[in-house]
Amino acid sequence: MKCICWIAPKKFEIVERPIPKPAKGEALIKVESVGVCGSDIHYYLEGRIGDQIISPPLVLGHEFAGIVEEVGTKDDEHLLGKRVAVEPGFPCGECEFCKTGHYNVCPALRFLGGPGCDGALAEYIAVPANFCFPVPENISAPIASMVEPTAVAVHTMELAGVLPGDTVLVVGLGSIGLIVLQLLLNSSPTTFVAGVDLLDYRVDVAKKLGATEVFIPPEGSRTEQTEHTIRWAKEITQGRGFDITIDCTNQSEGLIIACSSAKPAGRVVLVGISGKDYDLIPVSIARRRELTLKWCRRFLFNFPTAIELIAKGKINFDFILTHHFRPDEVSKAFEMVANNSDNIIKASIDWV
Amino acid sequence: MKCICWIAPKKFEIVERPIPKPAKGEALIKVESVGVCGSDIHYYLEGRIGDQIISPPLVLGHEFAGIVEEVGTKDDEHLLGKRVAVEPGFPCGECEFCKTGHYNVCPALRFLGGPGCDGALAEYIAVPANFCFPVPENISAPIASMVEPTAVAVHTMELAGVLPGDTVLVVGLGSIGLIVLQLLLNSSPTTFVAGVDLLDYRVDVAKKLGATEVFIPPEGSRTEQTEHTIRWAKEITQGRGFDITIDCTNQSEGLIIACSSAKPAGRVVLVGISGKDYDLIPVSIARRRELTLKWCRRFLFNFPTAIELIAKGKINFDFILTHHFRPDEVSKAFEMVANNSDNIIKASIDWV
Amino acid sequence: MKCICWIAPKKFEIVERPIPKPAKGEALIKVESVGVCGSDIHYYLEGRIGDQIISPPLVLGHEFAGIVEEVGTKDDEHLLGKRVAVEPGFPCGECEFCKTGHYNVCPALRFLGGPGCDGALAEYIAVPANFCFPVPENISAPIASMVEPTAVAVHTMELAGVLPGDTVLVVGLGSIGLIVLQLLLNSSPTTFVAGVDLLDYRVDVAKKLGATEVFIPPEGSRTEQTEHTIRWAKEITQGRGFDITIDCTNQSEGLIIACSSAKPAGRVVLVGISGKDYDLIPVSIARRRELTLKWCRRFLFNFPTAIELIAKGKINFDFILTHHFRPDEVSKAFEMVANNSDNIIKASIDWV
Amino acid sequence: MKCICWIAPKKFEIVERPIPKPAKGEALIKVESVGVCGSDIHYYLEGRIGDQIISPPLVLGHEFAGIVEEVGTKDDEHLLGKRVAVEPGFPCGECEFCKTGHYNVCPALRFLGGPGCDGALAEYIAVPANFCFPVPENISAPIASMVEPTAVAVHTMELAGVLPGDTVLVVGLGSIGLIVLQLLLNSSPTTFVAGVDLLDYRVDVAKKLGATEVFIPPEGSRTEQTEHTIRWAKEITQGRGFDITIDCTNQSEGLIIACSSAKPAGRVVLVGISGKDYDLIPVSIARRRELTLKWCRRFLFNFPTAIELIAKGKINFDFILTHHFRPDEVSKAFEMVANNSDNIIKASIDWV
Repeated sequence: MKCICWIAPKKFEIVERPIPKPAKGEALIKVESVGVCGSDIHYYLEGRIGDQIISPPLVLGHEFAGIVEEVGTKDDEHLLGKRVAVEPGFPCGECEFCKTGHYNVCPALRFLGGPGCDGALAEYIAVPANFCFPVPENISAPIASMVEPTAVAVHTMELAGVLPGDTVLVVGLGSIGLIVLQLLLNSSPTTFVAGVDLLDYRVDVAKKLGATEVFIPPEGSRTEQTEHTIRWAKEITQGRGFDITIDCTNQSEGLIIACSSAKPAGRVVLVGISGKDYDLIPVSIARRRELTLKWCRRFLFNFPTAIELIAKGKINFDFILTHHFRPDEVSKAFEMVANNSDNIIKASIDWV
Repeated sequence: MKCICWIAPKKFEIVERPIPKPAKGEALIKVESVGVCGSDIHYYLEGRIGDQIISPPLVLGHEFAGIVEEVGTKDDEHLLGKRVAVEPGFPCGECEFCKTGHYNVCPALRFLGGPGCDGALAEYIAVPANFCFPVPENISAPIASMVEPTAVAVHTMELAGVLPGDTVLVVGLGSIGLIVLQLLLNSSPTTFVAGVDLLDYRVDVAKKLGATEVFIPPEGSRTEQTEHTIRWAKEITQGRGFDITIDCTNQSEGLIIACSSAKPAGRVVLVGISGKDYDLIPVSIARRRELTLKWCRRFLFNFPTAIELIAKGKINFDFILTHHFRPDEVSKAFEMVANNSDNIIKASIDWV
Repeated sequence: MKCICWIAPKKFEIVERPIPKPAKGEALIKVESVGVCGSDIHYYLEGRIGDQIISPPLVLGHEFAGIVEEVGTKDDEHLLGKRVAVEPGFPCGECEFCKTGHYNVCPALRFLGGPGCDGALAEYIAVPANFCFPVPENISAPIASMVEPTAVAVHTMELAGVLPGDTVLVVGLGSIGLIVLQLLLNSSPTTFVAGVDLLDYRVDVAKKLGATEVFIPPEGSRTEQTEHTIRWAKEITQGRGFDITIDCTNQSEGLIIACSSAKPAGRVVLVGISGKDYDLIPVSIARRRELTLKWCRRFLFNFPTAIELIAKGKINFDFILTHHFRPDEVSKAFEMVANNSDNIIKASIDWV
Repeated sequence: MKCICWIAPKKFEIVERPIPKPAKGEALIKVESVGVCGSDIHYYLEGRIGDQIISPPLVLGHEFAGIVEEVGTKDDEHLLGKRVAVEPGFPCGECEFCKTGHYNVCPALRFLGGPGCDGALAEYIAVPANFCFPVPENISAPIASMVEPTAVAVHTMELAGVLPGDTVLVVGLGSIGLIVLQLLLNSSPTTFVAGVDLLDYRVDVAKKLGATEVFIPPEGSRTEQTEHTIRWAKEITQGRGFDITIDCTNQSEGLIIACSSAKPAGRVVLVGISGKDYDLIPVSIARRRELTLKWCRRFLFNFPTAIELIAKGKINFDFILTHHFRPDEVSKAFEMVANNSDNIIKASIDWV
């Protein structure tokens, strides 16, 4: 089978490997579609996200769907021939974190396409069968590969705990930001959902999807744009700030904007990945407003809800999954996502 | 001015009293519309709700709106001429409960139309100005009187804490149940909202408003109907139970259905008022499923959100506020509500 | 090996069975001590707890400790020869409840000494190795059998969420009540911990252990004693009620006292098992005070903390584990516990 | 009366002003003792804490106690002659934050000794009577001035939500850190409380007060000391991290140590004030561990509990309130605190 291996910053190589045999409890997936995630881009460009470092060759890719072709255990035969979205992190199941509802931070968790663990940019992959979630017939393969980022957005909503009347600011309108925005807008008793991004085409999508207010900071230095955004957030909330702010950027400024735009006693949820080990935080504001900050780590048994939301048409991917590539175009795909070329928001690599 | 006094079970008398003068910090309201609440009916019929007993003569009524005609303090003049919804409970503002976010259970709270405190079924009433919430022009007086039950529904949602994917059962589809249902349905990432009631016309309204599933237990004894409903709830959730159940009935069975239909580790919110001091609870189920039960006591600074939701058209009252009465028809209004005559759901007494 | 089988209400029989062979992932325990739990007594007397019914013959017993004699998997050999306390409920590990931090309500959970699953009143038992928790050398076998009820008390504390300054009432001073009381008293910023029971010798123990206030209601009917207790709770809190109340009784009155003695916005934790399917609850009080009720279902990965607390001497069992019996005295032991004879609080059956 | 006015960085002036007359609802306090807080030091040295800037002349001081000499309203006469600790922030009582349990972040809150509001370093001060909390006779004036920092520590505990078995790290062992440490140690089911500071005499006090483990990083650069401390925290928790970490420093490094030493899914409470507008935060760690950060803003109706804890002897101030000064020694007092001279931990200025 063909595998797309990352071998150095900005460099992939397609290699042949034997198709894996599913072990006991595993399922062999014929991969159909693989989404390109912001974390993949960090690895592609620098081989690292902060101190999390990958060693070449590594197969990237963790947002994916495919067809179950073989299973290692008789009990899992009901999966055969089904299209599944795969939860790509496998916790130990036994430690205190797994036992107490925090398996997403299990220290022994293996994550596809991360350090030491080949991912899904290959024709086949074998994964634990109980992390395969069948999707209904009305979900295509590329959309099924969007279950993973949708699960992140659902977990973000769990951390945000939106209540009727809450005003919410989404900072960063990439794919995660735009899915979160739609979950918020569907929560219509939330009467006010605002979005901000530096790229006008993303802001346009947010507007089309129904954002109450949107903002593109005018040209200027990063600092000026940040200050501009914070002023805007203050003005449209009459100086009060948002009940909840959610950083979905991959930039250091996201944290600053999110903290500075939250109301006193507000909540700030941080989903974005700046890629730095350290970022600046406005501690004086955070303290005087007694803010609560919650970082979001992937997902926590959110695939079933993500699939149900997508199956029921609650999330529109038409403006989000903007580009499709063939496996041999993988470098082009990663470059375009890294450079936000051609108004790209989300790309998938489709094997079939 | 005219006041409608409750003087004995099932008996009102209209009396003349002087128009009150607003004291410092108060506003004088010319009452326009007064909603008839289930708790009013308990008082009307029996003069009590459990051990909370009213003494005649008492002016009932706490769901109301009107025009501010006079204020006792210059700072409040901005209210003059405005239509306001009035939050009808006035806490002390100084005790530990008021200071720590629980003013709705302030032991010194005075509540309009409750023991020892005349309510709003009168031409005029003077109330603390800072409990008057102006409503936008697009909200009529009768709809403005619905702000109060909507605030109860908003507080119910605060206690329920609905997350994406949660399935919710609303037990009892009277006015509170139907407003809660709409708040839930607006929270569309909640993909499954079911409702149950004994009265088919209420269930019809729930269906019209978009409930995913509805149920009317077939004829039978109360016990049989309860068991039937619990079986139905189990079946439509494939034996799992609902993430959240909300009792909005005024019947002892509501508590039993709500507890018995919640999933393991589920939450049960209790808004209904059975009128009894003691009700039976399925403790064996509650314990084995480790349920959490939260009783809802009115509202907690929820008028602003309630007004915003109504102003933005998020709640349809067309099928809820079904009947309007003139002040001299008050007995007829209360009798009809008490007997669920003429498919009545909610009635308002309109002075103008 | 010898097994003590329950064969009918109030009837045990000692039978010979082959020593089990530990399967893969299992450990074979040579049982040393087995505690007698209130739930065991319910089964012993009536063969049921509400609708949870056991079929004879069944080996009861789930509070126990012993020595690991054999393991089914090489990885578990570090357990050989160790004294372990065994967490006696085995969840499936795969369902939504197991994945999200609620494995104690896993619908597929098998519980030792409950319906369809033989327990620990036997010379040997094979259990999953990862539910065996080694105890330090300073913990004797009978005390190690107390890890299980201590874990229940620790989980109770998790649900109670005691903060500095909280006043707490423990209703029922059996073994669970007295362990909870000690955990509360150790939380000394909790400046006020009160206890109540009908039996004076238990109340004496609570006093010895440091309870701030204790109460024995005077002779009278159950209703009078309940009312008496509620009045006392009101008086010693100057009418305010307790921040937290915890029912640890096996009586219907526990629920009533706990709800009636909580402050407005108070929390009520329910650990006791009345054995009934339905109990009466003071709904009028619960609603007017906007109470939150949390039922406690056993434990949730609380064995490590329970062991640590016991190892560090934070819990005094001298006055709690009052009686020890030989296996052939099992009927006597159960009768004494059922009848509260000889000032018994907790009994253990010791094989060695 | 004499007032101690801050007139420029590192400069006080004693001026004469008329004794204030208590307005309606106010109490006139004859000041006895005033504690010197870390925030006072920031103002003393730089005239600011981040963007919160004071203008000279300003009377500093907000930790204080005194005798009520006069009241403006008859209802408050019960306070006359009593020693009171004064809660030094006065919220509006009407806004959404005041109504919903967050009055400590009321945007209109006036705070004694902060921008635009003279504080307690004077012979007399008039304050709202309902912010005066009488202390029992066994609490001396200087100790009564410690009620305010104790209230901060109590609020910190509310945010921390310590449960049995939790391990906790206190970063920074100044007065707040040492009070928090004692509250934690009193919560004995918390079996492990560690403390760290750069100053050995403070660490000695923590050890004397019972800290399970303490640490002084060896000489080196700030970065080296920070790394050293993080390594230590990792080692003594066997690599797991602490359940809860609490930053009580006035240094940027406190935030880094606290975040880096928390377990996956851990909580970090931030009470310290670095004085900077922005500090660095280890976002990569925070995200991968899905941390929750809670900033602490002063207190939230915690004076009653603080007084009760002190009155019952739960907090030992012998090693904390190390130095006493006369009013005319105020510059010396502030200099010593600013420079940590003479092993000072906490100073009070005593008028009597």
